[in-house]
Amino acid sequence: MSTQTAAQRRAEASAAHNAYVAACPARQLLDRIGDKWVSLTVNALAEGPLRYSELNQRLAGVSQKMLTQPLRNLERDGLLTRTVLPEVPVRVDYRLTPLGEELLPVMRTIKRWAEDHMDQVLHARAAYDARS
Amino acid sequence: MSTQTAAQRRAEASAAHNAYVAACPARQLLDRIGDKWVSLTVNALAEGPLRYSELNQRLAGVSQKMLTQPLRNLERDGLLTRTVLPEVPVRVDYRLTPLGEELLPVMRTIKRWAEDHMDQVLHARAAYDARS
Repeated sequence: MSTQTAAQRRAEASAAHNAYVAACPARQLLDRIGDKWVSLTVNALAEGPLRYSELNQRLAGVSQKMLTQPLRNLERDGLLTRTVLPEVPVRVDYRLTPLGEELLPVMRTIKRWAEDHMDQVLHARAAYDARS
Repeated sequence: MSTQTAAQRRAEASAAHNAYVAACPARQLLDRIGDKWVSLTVNALAEGPLRYSELNQRLAGVSQKMLTQPLRNLERDGLLTRTVLPEVPVRVDYRLTPLGEELLPVMRTIKRWAEDHMDQVLHARAAYDARS
């Protein structure tokens, strides 16, 4: 009988993966969840499922190619589900999985950080460019 | 006299920047801080300043080009400082700025999330590949 708690299992999983190690798949996952389209997509699905066209509209400026590949990756990684509904015309819904819901607060924090600190970063850039 | 609190200033800055808007610089900042080398670099500098060679060693598998550009971007964005020390041979130290220290918990969370959830993602990928 396993007497491991959820916290112990998490600690073990964490010890097993280390993004500093080049060969560790966690480094690639870090790369993927860092992608801005991934972060914007997960944030956009926070309130519930969206159709492809709605996602496309929400993520202004995203090309079809830039949206399709991240969506497929997110589906393959178990972070969202893609449901084709038998309507005419065909309707495709995207929805966060429970694992995707767990990622949401992280994605929300990183998006929010970028928005909150943009002015400080712009000032730093102007100062850097003036120096060099 | 300004009676704005830090929270009010943050709320205002946040309202001024929205990463969903294609033209907003916050989208580009989101892209930058999502970069895995940026995340690993900021995490590596958590304990204090490091020399270039130490950073290079810590981020196993990073090529010089992959490290140099993120370091320059982080410096320009005001997230770290680069100090050339008058030693022989020349020593170059990288250190987080106060703004970089503010980013640290976010970077720590995203790296940790990738490591903690890697197994679940690997299972999801295997299931997806078996279906298709």
